[in-house]
Amino acid sequence: MIYITRRERFNAAHRLFREDFTDEENLAIFGKCSNPNWHGHNYQLFVTIKGEVNPETGFLVNLKTLSAIIKSRVIDKVDHKNINLDVSFMNGEFASTEMLAITIWNELFDEVEKLGATLHKIRLEESENNSVEYYG
Amino acid sequence: MIYITRRERFNAAHRLFREDFTDEENLAIFGKCSNPNWHGHNYQLFVTIKGEVNPETGFLVNLKTLSAIIKSRVIDKVDHKNINLDVSFMNGEFASTEMLAITIWNELFDEVEKLGATLHKIRLEESENNSVEYYG
Amino acid sequence: MIYITRRERFNAAHRLFREDFTDEENLAIFGKCSNPNWHGHNYQLFVTIKGEVNPETGFLVNLKTLSAIIKSRVIDKVDHKNINLDVSFMNGEFASTEMLAITIWNELFDEVEKLGATLHKIRLEESENNSVEYYG
Amino acid sequence: MIYITRRERFNAAHRLFREDFTDEENLAIFGKCSNPNWHGHNYQLFVTIKGEVNPETGFLVNLKTLSAIIKSRVIDKVDHKNINLDVSFMNGEFASTEMLAITIWNELFDEVEKLGATLHKIRLEESENNSVEYYG
Amino acid sequence: MIYITRRERFNAAHRLFREDFTDEENLAIFGKCSNPNWHGHNYQLFVTIKGEVNPETGFLVNLKTLSAIIKSRVIDKVDHKNINLDVSFMNGEFASTEMLAITIWNELFDEVEKLGATLHKIRLEESENNSVEYYG
Amino acid sequence: MIYITRRERFNAAHRLFREDFTDEENLAIFGKCSNPNWHGHNYQLFVTIKGEVNPETGFLVNLKTLSAIIKSRVIDKVDHKNINLDVSFMNGEFASTEMLAITIWNELFDEVEKLGATLHKIRLEESENNSVEYYG
Repeated sequence: MIYITRRERFNAAHRLFREDFTDEENLAIFGKCSNPNWHGHNYQLFVTIKGEVNPETGFLVNLKTLSAIIKSRVIDKVDHKNINLDVSFMNGEFASTEMLAITIWNELFDEVEKLGATLHKIRLEESENNSVEYYG
Repeated sequence: MIYITRRERFNAAHRLFREDFTDEENLAIFGKCSNPNWHGHNYQLFVTIKGEVNPETGFLVNLKTLSAIIKSRVIDKVDHKNINLDVSFMNGEFASTEMLAITIWNELFDEVEKLGATLHKIRLEESENNSVEYYG
Repeated sequence: MIYITRRERFNAAHRLFREDFTDEENLAIFGKCSNPNWHGHNYQLFVTIKGEVNPETGFLVNLKTLSAIIKSRVIDKVDHKNINLDVSFMNGEFASTEMLAITIWNELFDEVEKLGATLHKIRLEESENNSVEYYG
Repeated sequence: MIYITRRERFNAAHRLFREDFTDEENLAIFGKCSNPNWHGHNYQLFVTIKGEVNPETGFLVNLKTLSAIIKSRVIDKVDHKNINLDVSFMNGEFASTEMLAITIWNELFDEVEKLGATLHKIRLEESENNSVEYYG
Repeated sequence: MIYITRRERFNAAHRLFREDFTDEENLAIFGKCSNPNWHGHNYQLFVTIKGEVNPETGFLVNLKTLSAIIKSRVIDKVDHKNINLDVSFMNGEFASTEMLAITIWNELFDEVEKLGATLHKIRLEESENNSVEYYG
Repeated sequence: MIYITRRERFNAAHRLFREDFTDEENLAIFGKCSNPNWHGHNYQLFVTIKGEVNPETGFLVNLKTLSAIIKSRVIDKVDHKNINLDVSFMNGEFASTEMLAITIWNELFDEVEKLGATLHKIRLEESENNSVEYYG
């Protein structure tokens, strides 16, 4: 069993808040992350998949193919977007790094299966200090 | 003459666009950076100042003081904010990295003089691939 | 189950040695890390906790709270300190990265429980080449 | 149980291809990685070992010893070399990052046992975007 | 006057040697960099240009355009290539980082002029320890 | 004219203080950097030299030679040392990053001349947030 990880990046705006809260209540719970006019991040997404090395090629899957899938299923939908407003797969979810990691897992799981590998981990870095990992 | 550099960071949303353009015209000029619902970045700000080493202390200026000035004059005004909407010193300017570097220079120049040093350079990194430098 | 990681940093002096050894014996076992006048590092501490996403907030725990706990229980006690001489929770222990990771785990475990999450991993980087991980 | 990781680096040339394929077939499967005149990378190798802290020294193993083993068994054989042509332990294998991680595991496993620890993981970064992990 | 820097990356093989030297003589002068079967690097190229901020757009030049020029004039010619054998603009030159920086300057200078800006600096990183800068 | 930069690293302990001050006075001026039992850093030293490319070799100087000089004149004297107590070329100086950069310049200037190049810049990073540059 071998694990390979592909990094992709996207830049997006978001806001942590609840619509049923006032701005003051949101500020109390979510701090400056609830700024009504949004803020943003350079997100780094690390997708780890696992499987057996293909004896015909020496690799698990073609990383170019994996990268293309991540781009079409995730990056194209979130890069230079507003995570709260523009991203269909985040509809109805909190725009937290945690929920983003979970929904990205759901976007990619079946696509990785079709490649003959298994999705192992989503790691999402919001900043050099904060990151999230999800294993399904 | 010695040069010291302090790094500070902020996360902000922005949009590149002109109000007198349609969304289509903005898209043609500014690409995905003109997304109407904003996007954002983890900005890294490097402030370089220069002067003589103080023979009483062995340093140019106290970096804690320099950091406090950068925080009160810049970081507190841009961190977790929308650069187009929330930042008074960017009022009426394009929210580009270039204009942000220039206005940050203006915010800091006199404050650094008061410390007995001279502002030398503002370097602003918008992403690992894109950065701007301004020397006044 | 979701995992989140917070990075904090501290700068400290230390020395690897045994009091019952001569300087020569310490040099033979611990090499230049046993320099009698100390040396030091910029340590990077990565604290990973795990648990369920809170459906009321969309996050596992408030990272600001987690950061405050790491600061009060660990960083304030080790930053700009001598690990052998100044750090009460390292009393009687070798000032190795291994022992530092283990004692930091002990400092944080109960505090993380009180947040409604579980401490999963302490990763401590002493340099870009050397790091330690502890899972309890 | 404690885990320690040592990073070492090497710069090497390689090519992904099959001898029984034409250049066109190799290009179709392996893309630009099949360039007949080779290309190359700055590889970063992270070796993680695990075991109990030695109560006589406060560390798992002496990292200087671990580093010397990685250098003699791996780095000296691959650094500034052609992975397809110059590396005996890659003889007959595809020069992929996957196969390199697996063969490095095999080079190091017994040597780590002799130190009184257990090899836990080989992580090999080919670029800032692509990496492989192998756990045996 | 404002300065902007764009980073692009390429992975290539090379060898430092003189054809009029024996392998032993090349080894004496160029060390392991003269390995006859090549070695390689992940190069990082930082292109800095300077000029006035365009009052119509708020930026110096469109970074997407600058990136496209660097890709067509440089990256497409060197990425996944052998610098000694495959790169026409390095024909007859030593495949050193110094000569690569100088020839990349020559490839880009006129193109940057056409954008209405001036090429200021080429910085080329061969590894985390070694880099070259050229100002024309 | 070409510029090349070599990075070397060292880990050291230091303390900012004046012997003619009490601990309280030192704390008021130098903050936690005056901790009487020292603290420490992973320093990164970037040495930039300039000159003409040698037409016989394609490089400015052999980087292996430059590295050896930096090691013998600087790194061997400061690595795993106490900058206040163990470093002869810092005798009588404040152990600040500023003074360390200046004295390292003095240690290297003549040695670089002997290589047929000119020392251009010393950059010394004390942490990811703080660095100093000196041009003589």
